[in-house]
Amino acid sequence: MARVRPLSGFPEWTPAERIVEASVLDSLREVFQLHGFAEIETRAVETVDRLAGKSEAAKEIYTLGRLNAEEGSEAKLGLHFDLTLPFARYVEEFQNELAFPFRRFQIQKVWRGERPQEGRYREFYQADIDVVARQTLPAHADVEVAVVMARALAALPVPGVTMRVNNRRLVEGFYRGVGIGDIAGALRSVDKLDKIGPDGVRTELIEQDIPESAAAAILDLAQISAPDAGFVAAVEDLWASSTTVHDPAEAEQELRAGLAELVALVEGVNAAVPGTAVADLRIARGLDYYTGSVYETFLTGHEDLGSICSGGRYDSLVAGGGFPGVGMSIGVSRLVSRMLGAGLVRASRPVPTAVLVAVTDEASRATSVRIADALRGRRIAAEVAPSAAKFGKQIQYADKRGIPFVWFPDAGSGDAESESTGGEVKDIRSGDQTPADPTSWEPPAADLHPRIVPAD
Amino acid sequence: MARVRPLSGFPEWTPAERIVEASVLDSLREVFQLHGFAEIETRAVETVDRLAGKSEAAKEIYTLGRLNAEEGSEAKLGLHFDLTLPFARYVEEFQNELAFPFRRFQIQKVWRGERPQEGRYREFYQADIDVVARQTLPAHADVEVAVVMARALAALPVPGVTMRVNNRRLVEGFYRGVGIGDIAGALRSVDKLDKIGPDGVRTELIEQDIPESAAAAILDLAQISAPDAGFVAAVEDLWASSTTVHDPAEAEQELRAGLAELVALVEGVNAAVPGTAVADLRIARGLDYYTGSVYETFLTGHEDLGSICSGGRYDSLVAGGGFPGVGMSIGVSRLVSRMLGAGLVRASRPVPTAVLVAVTDEASRATSVRIADALRGRRIAAEVAPSAAKFGKQIQYADKRGIPFVWFPDAGSGDAESESTGGEVKDIRSGDQTPADPTSWEPPAADLHPRIVPAD
Repeated sequence: MARVRPLSGFPEWTPAERIVEASVLDSLREVFQLHGFAEIETRAVETVDRLAGKSEAAKEIYTLGRLNAEEGSEAKLGLHFDLTLPFARYVEEFQNELAFPFRRFQIQKVWRGERPQEGRYREFYQADIDVVARQTLPAHADVEVAVVMARALAALPVPGVTMRVNNRRLVEGFYRGVGIGDIAGALRSVDKLDKIGPDGVRTELIEQDIPESAAAAILDLAQISAPDAGFVAAVEDLWASSTTVHDPAEAEQELRAGLAELVALVEGVNAAVPGTAVADLRIARGLDYYTGSVYETFLTGHEDLGSICSGGRYDSLVAGGGFPGVGMSIGVSRLVSRMLGAGLVRASRPVPTAVLVAVTDEASRATSVRIADALRGRRIAAEVAPSAAKFGKQIQYADKRGIPFVWFPDAGSGDAESESTGGEVKDIRSGDQTPADPTSWEPPAADLHPRIVPAD
Repeated sequence: MARVRPLSGFPEWTPAERIVEASVLDSLREVFQLHGFAEIETRAVETVDRLAGKSEAAKEIYTLGRLNAEEGSEAKLGLHFDLTLPFARYVEEFQNELAFPFRRFQIQKVWRGERPQEGRYREFYQADIDVVARQTLPAHADVEVAVVMARALAALPVPGVTMRVNNRRLVEGFYRGVGIGDIAGALRSVDKLDKIGPDGVRTELIEQDIPESAAAAILDLAQISAPDAGFVAAVEDLWASSTTVHDPAEAEQELRAGLAELVALVEGVNAAVPGTAVADLRIARGLDYYTGSVYETFLTGHEDLGSICSGGRYDSLVAGGGFPGVGMSIGVSRLVSRMLGAGLVRASRPVPTAVLVAVTDEASRATSVRIADALRGRRIAAEVAPSAAKFGKQIQYADKRGIPFVWFPDAGSGDAESESTGGEVKDIRSGDQTPADPTSWEPPAADLHPRIVPAD
């Protein structure tokens, strides 16, 4: 019986599982960099003052203490619970050393003290991209960020995704046009559509003293969805039949600005990664922070996971105002956990090693090391057998570790002075064994590194 | 005035500095993998019970609390302060899923609540490799681990390193042979040789009731050092003249075993990476944990940094016994901080972007996006100018961001229906501008990615 047990909410992977996670992280990093996003890493800790500012998250904050130390006058610290808040602080702190619009990606672990449950972790990787400007950021950045994330997700070995997008200007213009005063309150209710259904939302809206006709219009708006500009006519029809305010001109201007941005977004994303974006006018996404495009992304066949990549446009990154931007964040651990847990993928082997170089006897270990070094010099990962056991045992050892090839040094090459490093190499899966020279032999490309393959 | 200030002991890098750090981490990872080490990542937290077991570290432990939550019955948690303790727990927990000898590397941040000072951080990266066995681990693993680290360090853009190695069996055999009872106490004093000098150590030894002749022998041993097997004769001479115990046979056996291991280590490392290893018999390295080879590594010309890569052989990784192994750990942040701070290196540019595609006018932005996508499809990092400013301004923007090339789309390719994506590309450093096709143009290899170059 193991004396140690996993900690709930703190996932850890076997070496083979870690290969899957690392390959996901590498793939994201590559797509982000190809699109000109620069990496930053922020420290894991922020002052609690800053962290707790976002009141809804305060209960999830892990604070830091010291076991045997007087605290003194140092600022109280806590672990970051997302990458947006540290990014905002970083931009403020490094603003004179950054060129704007600043395009950054950031892939780090974050910590939340919430109750662990399936797909909710206390420690997990997030992968964020944001573009922030000093003054104003053009709307095409909203399209670009979504395209980069659509491509980043398309490059992963997962089923397709649907990116459900909306626009807060559209929604707020509409709400204002049908006479809603407390827009945030109405949005909060619409956000519960999936949980409590249309009747539940209607009841909540009416409790907010919203007239039945306006509540109906709001619910009708939330039902509109289209994978292209087709939603525009539906919104316009609804607008024409629902407007109740005396002078809707200003609201309509906002609505139309939002419509145009949303059309550009859906069309732009689908032009780059066909079949990905859907305008879905029920997407509300947070309450105060976002001011334009909002995004949620669902994994096909795994919609129960919730959104795996979300974000939106904001007017100001930092609390004091300034730095408008747009960003999205992938919940990487949740995604990787599902990829592994649902058996979507596995690593082709649990070790980087392509070749185990056998050892004929301990006296000739140096020969085996020379062969391994010749392979490594050509970027073929190799290790030398730990003991000069019978070859059958050494093959078993390779098999147990998942190493596909075993190299048997030439008997003649046991001479320590000899530069001979030949021998034979066996593919232990097929049993094929052929003479080979470590200065020229290549494994098949598929065996060079562990690969991500469909799970059996 | 910035409203935010750095937190002492928690380093953060600019995007250009992060490129240097990330390239160091990638390089280490590649060398480790070429030698057949598999990556694991452990959670950042361990139970405080487990962390505090290593009493000397207890005062540095950061414990976790929750801001607004009743703690309940959950185990008290803290942040790991190294990667050895989590690795030991991981091996215990996953032992049935691992193949032994288990060769792992692990690159993660660790946290220590110590007083920050130059080169001492509260949050920093460590990069560890270990080989652990279930039963016994042959001595050649000691050589292999040192060779892998010597190669990992040689692959970095830093001055050379000297790996100072010793062997606890040699030292303990010798100490026993000259009649020392409290070997750990004597080692603790010898460990201070650099700080308090030979006379200081002698005084301490004599205070431990060690006879003057034995103290002299211990100090003589600590002065022995050689870059090859040359130290053996010096040790043997000293042994012959210093042994005071009645029957030194058992002590001599231990001494000779240690001598043989140390010769193999120095010769093995220097065969692989010439000029790296020095047998240095003053290296004591910790007190109870290590049982054979011990390593410390110094950066040439930056010895004031202290050891940048240390470790050793141990009899049992886990507290209850079992899992003998050998491992070494690089203090990556300390090293990177010195590389940056001493101006050894810099990134050739602060962004991944090789090409900024200019935008002629907003109506033809799609053309510029197509050109950028053609480049990205060929793994050339590109971004599209944020606004259709005058070309001079767009060139300025590229210059400010450190992007070496600006692509000017063909005037004729503004037609959205056209698949033409030609134009001209300007190297903004030389001013050279030539016609180019994004489906075939290549930047010079040196400009494809940001590189690490000598600082100016």
